Amino acid sequence: MTYLYNQNVFKIPRGTRDFTSQEMEKRRYIEEIMRTTFMSFGYNEIQTPTFETLELFKAKSGQEIMDELYYFKDKGNRDLALRPELTAPTIRFYVEKLQMEPKPLKLFYFGNCYRYDRPQKGRYREFKQAGCEIIGTDSPEANAELISLAYKILKNSGIKNLKLNIGNLTILSSVFNQLKITKDQQKYIIPLIDKSMFEEVIDALRDFGIENKDAENLVRFLKTTEIKFIKGFIEDDETKKELEKFETILTLLEKAFGIKDFKIQMNIVRGLDYYKGLVFEIETPKLGAEKQLCGGGEYDLISLFGGKDAPSAGFAIGFDRTIVALETENFNFPTKNIDVYVIPLTEDFIEKAIIIVQALREAGLTVDLDLLRRGIGKSLKYASSIKAKKAMIIGPDEIKQNSVTIRDMDTGEQKLIKIENIKNSIR
Amino acid sequence: MTYLYNQNVFKIPRGTRDFTSQEMEKRRYIEEIMRTTFMSFGYNEIQTPTFETLELFKAKSGQEIMDELYYFKDKGNRDLALRPELTAPTIRFYVEKLQMEPKPLKLFYFGNCYRYDRPQKGRYREFKQAGCEIIGTDSPEANAELISLAYKILKNSGIKNLKLNIGNLTILSSVFNQLKITKDQQKYIIPLIDKSMFEEVIDALRDFGIENKDAENLVRFLKTTEIKFIKGFIEDDETKKELEKFETILTLLEKAFGIKDFKIQMNIVRGLDYYKGLVFEIETPKLGAEKQLCGGGEYDLISLFGGKDAPSAGFAIGFDRTIVALETENFNFPTKNIDVYVIPLTEDFIEKAIIIVQALREAGLTVDLDLLRRGIGKSLKYASSIKAKKAMIIGPDEIKQNSVTIRDMDTGEQKLIKIENIKNSIR
Repeated sequence: MTYLYNQNVFKIPRGTRDFTSQEMEKRRYIEEIMRTTFMSFGYNEIQTPTFETLELFKAKSGQEIMDELYYFKDKGNRDLALRPELTAPTIRFYVEKLQMEPKPLKLFYFGNCYRYDRPQKGRYREFKQAGCEIIGTDSPEANAELISLAYKILKNSGIKNLKLNIGNLTILSSVFNQLKITKDQQKYIIPLIDKSMFEEVIDALRDFGIENKDAENLVRFLKTTEIKFIKGFIEDDETKKELEKFETILTLLEKAFGIKDFKIQMNIVRGLDYYKGLVFEIETPKLGAEKQLCGGGEYDLISLFGGKDAPSAGFAIGFDRTIVALETENFNFPTKNIDVYVIPLTEDFIEKAIIIVQALREAGLTVDLDLLRRGIGKSLKYASSIKAKKAMIIGPDEIKQNSVTIRDMDTGEQKLIKIENIKNSIR
Repeated sequence: MTYLYNQNVFKIPRGTRDFTSQEMEKRRYIEEIMRTTFMSFGYNEIQTPTFETLELFKAKSGQEIMDELYYFKDKGNRDLALRPELTAPTIRFYVEKLQMEPKPLKLFYFGNCYRYDRPQKGRYREFKQAGCEIIGTDSPEANAELISLAYKILKNSGIKNLKLNIGNLTILSSVFNQLKITKDQQKYIIPLIDKSMFEEVIDALRDFGIENKDAENLVRFLKTTEIKFIKGFIEDDETKKELEKFETILTLLEKAFGIKDFKIQMNIVRGLDYYKGLVFEIETPKLGAEKQLCGGGEYDLISLFGGKDAPSAGFAIGFDRTIVALETENFNFPTKNIDVYVIPLTEDFIEKAIIIVQALREAGLTVDLDLLRRGIGKSLKYASSIKAKKAMIIGPDEIKQNSVTIRDMDTGEQKLIKIENIKNSIR
């Protein structure tokens, strides 16, 4: 594809995407399913700005986040950053304006986020997230409902292959403490745990002087999917209470929310300092390195942002990956085609054609009109290229009989229809 | 409102907004009406990135645009800018990827845009636009359809007070040329014309040495709303053709699209170099300085961006102003409330409650559940604060009879309903 004047073709910024109308149809369809599901669970949509103060993200994630951020000074010399995620902005919004609202507050949102990542398959510098936060309760039913919401959203979107893994960071921490693994040692082994590199965990613990028996016990704990096994491990009373709550969540999930295919996975670490208690992830195994569609759990951010402490939990769903997952499963996205493409046979019939077109549009139909005066042959070809269901031809013979010709674009069948009957004939 | 820990409250960036769920409900409602209207006219939705190369906007609007832009270098030292508008990105997308698509191409979009303006009533640094472009035809019916689409979108949104003004820059230019007003002189008087400061236009022209009679004729031309009067003015044949087309557009608008309440307004200048031919604006008079809701017309950008020349036209609608206009007219936005708020009387009934809740959600109802175990009194108060239509109480008496109590939150009336009949009783 070359053009005469292609020397000043401007390029899309690296790592970002344009979406064609075919892609947008899919995206709007899935967004609507997600929105409906959030709302059916009593969540309400909010929206925050695309950029925030740089300080907000540094307060949440530390100085290191700078490497991944798009940040800049505005003309008033303020440091701003394009948001890399939506939880910090939502909690900032909550602390600034929503603290007096009745609790629990159930908020959801869609938003584009920005990360200065190396572009690669399934990772973009601008990407879309769906997510939610619940503020003001940490009851087991609230937590179970949250997990169930995340799972339902992805199920309702149409993804067949889903794996739900549930862990608990409070329990994991207490096991670290029991085995006298220090914070610094935890910092070293957590990335290994995250990648299920258990042999390396054992080697590291040995180097730290942890007894072999204890190291092997830790790995056994990290690998277990049995609540009984975890019970055998926990010694202190506080953690026993957390474990009891964890068990109630799982029971509610299974018996009340009807979600049976989850797995306990104690090596979910989520690597972030402000998570605590419940954590969960939803994956779609087929996507390989990009398999994680959703991550969430309980966290502490409100007091860090200057608010009055309140329990909070939430999750984020990768919108783009959800689409990729559906495409990988050959999901059959519905398409919205033009109902009728209207062709005035000559200039003389344009006015009449438009009057009919407008009446059909008012009646809720999607109607397009030949705007190039290109004649019947080319117009029918165009109607076919935009996948119109029907074509309508308006010429002298038709108008003489106060009618139009309607052509079924699939079968090629043509019928003369009285103008007053067009609506019914098309529906 | 003071809090114990308010010393590190983070603030929203100046000139940007958070949207509460009440505001988002309004916005999604209007967005959906706009989308449906675009689609009924055969337009297809696309999306481009939030930022583009800085060069793109400089190419379109010149070096001056820099003062209004949020721009920054990415870590690869590329100059990027948050988009101030959506036509340049759309044409960049078209030139890069869509030139081979069948014509005409009818594209619409929603997107946030960014301008480093002084924040003031109705002007924000992040604002939302809806808009469209039609590429590949400049027939009168295409132009008339475009104007009619803009008008219908605002009408369908529910705004009652709309003023549609239509002008033509090709005709205006030719009048400038006839009167021998140079480009530099035009540059000086165009802002005055834009503000209808006609006495100042006459003064300026006198200073430029233009004859008084000519200056007064220009102003008469700028003030006219009569096509006849314009006809008397035009001398050259090219412009006469453009005027003929202009007349056809207006006739189609009135006779075919059924839009009768427009005004010819030859002093629409839109101040931008790449506009030409048809221009139009839609205002809502009540909003004063912020009254312009929509602006559009024909323009030349494709070849500037390195593409093969093709006719193009489009418009942009200020989404935020549309909402303000509706609020000013006291428009009655529909609200989506919780259908049922479910209250388990004690802990023992949580599991049973969730099973009922989930069945109702699956049936498409919006259902919330007490997640704080706060007892019947407080729960009913909360149900009322979130404007739930019904409350459902599940306790020992109810379960004994395989039933629940359903309370109408408006009337306070309570009924015992068998579990298998809940769905019908709520609908």
